[in-house]
Amino acid sequence: MNVQAKDGGTLEAEMRAMGHAARDAAAALREASTTQKNTALLAAAAAIRATQLQILAANEEDMRAAAARNLTPALLDRLKLDAKRVEATAQAVADVASLPDPVGRELARWRRPNGLDIARISTPIGVIGIIYESRPNVTADAGALCLKSGNVVILRGGSESLHSSRAIHAALVVGLEAAGLPAAAIQLVPTKDRAAVGHMLAGLNGTIDMIVPRGGKSLVARVQAEARVPVLAHLEGICHTYVHEKADLAMARALVLNGKMRRTGVCGATETVLIDKDILATHLKPILDDLAKAGCEIRGDEAVRAIYPAARIATEEDWRTEYLDAIVAVRAVAGVEEAIRHIAAYGSQHTDSIVTEDSRAAQRFLSALDSAIVMHNASTQFADGGEFGMGAEIGIGTGKLHARGPVGVEQLTIFKYVVRGSGQTRP
Amino acid sequence: MNVQAKDGGTLEAEMRAMGHAARDAAAALREASTTQKNTALLAAAAAIRATQLQILAANEEDMRAAAARNLTPALLDRLKLDAKRVEATAQAVADVASLPDPVGRELARWRRPNGLDIARISTPIGVIGIIYESRPNVTADAGALCLKSGNVVILRGGSESLHSSRAIHAALVVGLEAAGLPAAAIQLVPTKDRAAVGHMLAGLNGTIDMIVPRGGKSLVARVQAEARVPVLAHLEGICHTYVHEKADLAMARALVLNGKMRRTGVCGATETVLIDKDILATHLKPILDDLAKAGCEIRGDEAVRAIYPAARIATEEDWRTEYLDAIVAVRAVAGVEEAIRHIAAYGSQHTDSIVTEDSRAAQRFLSALDSAIVMHNASTQFADGGEFGMGAEIGIGTGKLHARGPVGVEQLTIFKYVVRGSGQTRP
Repeated sequence: MNVQAKDGGTLEAEMRAMGHAARDAAAALREASTTQKNTALLAAAAAIRATQLQILAANEEDMRAAAARNLTPALLDRLKLDAKRVEATAQAVADVASLPDPVGRELARWRRPNGLDIARISTPIGVIGIIYESRPNVTADAGALCLKSGNVVILRGGSESLHSSRAIHAALVVGLEAAGLPAAAIQLVPTKDRAAVGHMLAGLNGTIDMIVPRGGKSLVARVQAEARVPVLAHLEGICHTYVHEKADLAMARALVLNGKMRRTGVCGATETVLIDKDILATHLKPILDDLAKAGCEIRGDEAVRAIYPAARIATEEDWRTEYLDAIVAVRAVAGVEEAIRHIAAYGSQHTDSIVTEDSRAAQRFLSALDSAIVMHNASTQFADGGEFGMGAEIGIGTGKLHARGPVGVEQLTIFKYVVRGSGQTRP
Repeated sequence: MNVQAKDGGTLEAEMRAMGHAARDAAAALREASTTQKNTALLAAAAAIRATQLQILAANEEDMRAAAARNLTPALLDRLKLDAKRVEATAQAVADVASLPDPVGRELARWRRPNGLDIARISTPIGVIGIIYESRPNVTADAGALCLKSGNVVILRGGSESLHSSRAIHAALVVGLEAAGLPAAAIQLVPTKDRAAVGHMLAGLNGTIDMIVPRGGKSLVARVQAEARVPVLAHLEGICHTYVHEKADLAMARALVLNGKMRRTGVCGATETVLIDKDILATHLKPILDDLAKAGCEIRGDEAVRAIYPAARIATEEDWRTEYLDAIVAVRAVAGVEEAIRHIAAYGSQHTDSIVTEDSRAAQRFLSALDSAIVMHNASTQFADGGEFGMGAEIGIGTGKLHARGPVGVEQLTIFKYVVRGSGQTRP
């Protein structure tokens, strides 16, 4: 699996072979015991620590090539590893061992009048393809989460990080082998050839059950448009914080500031603030002053600019924009129904929060919106598997099938029905 | 919505309008109360009964056209309605009202150390497209199940049943209106134009969340190949009954006979019988005599034919075939591991059953196989939502995402997270 493909035909054959190896390994992973999976994870974490120097050397090679290609500082920072980041990567893998095993849980069980005993038992999905950008730690995170959930994974990271990812992947394979699990349970696409992504999106001859893209909007959009297998992802997080007329001002200030500015580049960051017209006079200026003081550019509608003239004029386009930056769009609304309508029209069904002391308004907001995560009196930046107490997450979904919201190991499972009888035949 | 499209452009515009109307109706359906949905179902059932004569007249029109087209007797029988079938259709709709409401269930709830209260609440999927053959009762069944689960549905039945389906659909709309729900919550594609299916498979401009095909293998295969939205379905049911060496002979005879012959055309029918070599001498002949007496053609491997020479020789192709007919393939295996390997290689992950008094062999079979339904000492023909106690089912899935096995109203839901805080910001 370490030979770079020379041409399209070779690549296709190689990718097909990876798919078949994955399918074969899936049977072993499905039945792997909790002990065996945790052994593999802890051994992999140890191997990452033990091969720190090799990983850093591989990363240096990637960094040199990346610098020569004039990548942006942000991309270089994501690609860069140091001793501290390698240790954090190893620890993240070890942490996955301490999560409960999501496989084999009895999700439901009932008995039929004819005596049949029916149980719904959680099972791994099978083979998951993960396509991500040049962030070497994703190689370890995604590999660990799939392993814990009994899934085989085919990893395809950004080409700039190939050497780093290879070095980390080698440590993961050490872990698998230490636990007597097949090395093909975690495979890394060994080539920079972009055509490999196309093969994965086509499903590798029916061997891939699901694709998870991890990265920016252009990557996710490509995967969603081209994939011939199910995709678990969110395209964007246009998250709203709605300050209701019955909001506590101090709480509203804290939640808007944290929701927008804690980290502006995450998908759970607030992009639009909605605020009730009746409290513009009292609440608007302190909230926006906090944001401005923190370095946030403010774009508002007419009603907002009437009170806060420093705001730039917001256009229709602003309501639809995921800035991922220190910019916020602010709109005045005439109550909870208008807020709901705005979010339904412009939101991305990711995470939306209402700030209010009025429990009826809160309940209306929580029940009317169909976002993956709806919140009352909490920062939208809590949209995260770790903050939800799931442990690590492989991403956040906004689709309407299988799982949405933070996707942890439990959400990487499906189920089967186990029916126990005593000779029942169907009339 | 009752004007037949004159050309492709008109059809596309009309289908797009259906999609938008569905999307608009989804908000109302999502929040419809249990009472409101049940009122609509009971009123629809009453309307089906009240318009029996119109429905039968519409069906006669379909039957006349179908007879002129020389449809097979089986297709004509599926298409045909009479007073008894109309009553059964009405009763099936009323029965859905008595199912528990699957929307708004608290699937999980926990509290974080920072005080955040997180609940996972079931919600409707949104807009479901159902593509089916010329069985008018599916119009009512599918409409009722989607309504109960808070989903909007766009129905596209076989063109031979269009008049019958229109008449039944009109009764469903009467039910919706009686409950104050939008008529667009259950829409019927009003044209025989086959291009309408292509538009649905493309997702009607992103308005369809999921497609459910109901029908034969060619329909499902087309939908799976062409759909650009998720599909919930099974392609085929190559179900196995495995007679283990520790099987009780009387039970094995009953389960094989029932599994194969109760109804041969259903997806849960046993297609292949596996039997342990060690009991061929004692168990094989009585089991196969039962089948032969019931009119079943038997195809066996060499070991089977050595004991039961009347069997035709089974080829590799037989192990892969869903006969849906009074034909069975029989193979001798050397124990539970070989049975598992055979089923993994040739099965379709639908329903597989082991007959044995040995609980360890049973446990091994139940845990090693990854079929949607695995059974111990029960007939494969129990693979059915009604038999599982789910009430009606919209189909059976064998995919690895969202839901598999019988798909009832509960499986037509997804969830959202509701987070309740007291002003928490994320560090």
